[in-house]
Amino acid sequence: MRYDLAVIGAGPAGLSAAVNASIRNKNVIVFGSDSPAISKTEGIKNYLGFGTISGEELNENFKKTLSGHDIERSNEKVQQIYAMGDYFAIILKGDQMLEATSVIVATGIELKKDLIGEDKFFGKGVSYCATCDASFYKGKEVVLIGYNEESVEEANYTAEVVDKLTYINMYKQNPELNDNIEVINGEVPVEFIGDVNPTTLKFKSGKEIDADGFFIIRDSSKPERLVPSIKTDKEHIIVDKNCRTNIRGLYAAGDIAGRPYQINKAAGEGQVAALDAAKYITLVKEGKFDKDNW
Amino acid sequence: MRYDLAVIGAGPAGLSAAVNASIRNKNVIVFGSDSPAISKTEGIKNYLGFGTISGEELNENFKKTLSGHDIERSNEKVQQIYAMGDYFAIILKGDQMLEATSVIVATGIELKKDLIGEDKFFGKGVSYCATCDASFYKGKEVVLIGYNEESVEEANYTAEVVDKLTYINMYKQNPELNDNIEVINGEVPVEFIGDVNPTTLKFKSGKEIDADGFFIIRDSSKPERLVPSIKTDKEHIIVDKNCRTNIRGLYAAGDIAGRPYQINKAAGEGQVAALDAAKYITLVKEGKFDKDNW
Repeated sequence: MRYDLAVIGAGPAGLSAAVNASIRNKNVIVFGSDSPAISKTEGIKNYLGFGTISGEELNENFKKTLSGHDIERSNEKVQQIYAMGDYFAIILKGDQMLEATSVIVATGIELKKDLIGEDKFFGKGVSYCATCDASFYKGKEVVLIGYNEESVEEANYTAEVVDKLTYINMYKQNPELNDNIEVINGEVPVEFIGDVNPTTLKFKSGKEIDADGFFIIRDSSKPERLVPSIKTDKEHIIVDKNCRTNIRGLYAAGDIAGRPYQINKAAGEGQVAALDAAKYITLVKEGKFDKDNW
Repeated sequence: MRYDLAVIGAGPAGLSAAVNASIRNKNVIVFGSDSPAISKTEGIKNYLGFGTISGEELNENFKKTLSGHDIERSNEKVQQIYAMGDYFAIILKGDQMLEATSVIVATGIELKKDLIGEDKFFGKGVSYCATCDASFYKGKEVVLIGYNEESVEEANYTAEVVDKLTYINMYKQNPELNDNIEVINGEVPVEFIGDVNPTTLKFKSGKEIDADGFFIIRDSSKPERLVPSIKTDKEHIIVDKNCRTNIRGLYAAGDIAGRPYQINKAAGEGQVAALDAAKYITLVKEGKFDKDNW
């Protein structure tokens, strides 16, 4: 099945986009769980419509706007998005794929910095998807740096495939890992070292660990890893005033589209992106999309 | 006294701007009464945070966000805004003036079209401020086209100054006008006729009325009439992604800054404008504003 619109991210930009596209009679799927950045914020006092409110409560109110609309939600993690011309292929874990005519990227922004060498070794021994790439490391030693619940699942799966898995625990105390996984707690990864491929992960303490392959599993990844050939300005996707990116049919909204990192700004951009996407979807589905008049 | 920030307009863009600037410790004055465009809307279902809600109720909720902040409000109509370098002169009725370091224009947009000849004769016999210009028509005949409550006050004032005032009633049944004012009901003004100066107003019915001067009193006027030398694209003020206009320290947000005409988009832009304005105000007040690094 092909969705009209896939929204990647369920923060204020993503939810606002979903509601607005749904009102325009587009069928919408939203990927991602509730925004941790909002839910963890204690007192928000500048979202127009509320006095001082906790992030958790505000998020509950956001979901009220979605109720009554037929909007599909999925907690699957989107691995990559490929532009196919009149539609996008959206790759999920385990090589599942679905299609959407238009995509709005509203992933928020990862404020943590990359590890040194992460970019350089991406695809050459550093990977963000264990489910996708674990099979390359059969009989080998792998290090997985885990920041979230998903990293626990990924580690347990990977441990069944590779010879030895070490889990660098950046997530929480005592994650539910299989017995055959070695866990390192209390070390902060800093740098990948190697020539063409990374061979060693160095910690802040100065300690090191060697491996044949490295996985990093955290909530969001850089936009260019999610969407090949997307144009960015440092950590932000470049958008125009309609939130269009350099790829037709693909939009960005919220923190990933630039500062300030604020909720009203994000919700506004989600709306702008969705209303423009709705026009785009209609044109494409009616076979009337004309690049020169867009 | 000089305000840090003057916000022109009290719709979602203006209110959002005011709250955000206030949180950044700027002292703020907001001009304008509650947005009629919102208050008159029956069911709004795409403002993130609420289910379907009446415009009136949503507006009440907006005001909750302002409560507790020390934000001054004024119902005076701003006539013109002049850029003076490090501050703006804001001209009110009766030649009152106040100053602000930065200004955010969030007036919304007048969807009604101009009358034919209105632009051509502006300043040459067509005026938008009776209080400012009535004295030019002492002993003469004046027509005032009134669209709002303010037009009633303006007409009553003007009638005391000029020889004869005719009020073209586009406002409501039986406005409270002084006895010496002639009222025309049920006619729709279409065109000003004249050579260098307008001499005649033509109605849709084909009827005409002659006068020495014409006043048009409606809620908003074109941005270039409010701010001389502002750059516009048709009816919109041109802004960059920080909502900056071509005039330094002057911002635009909401409908006046472009489509879509939507509440979340407006509130988001108000926030973006205010946060950038707050930076600008700090730099100017500390004497550190540097055009080349802005």
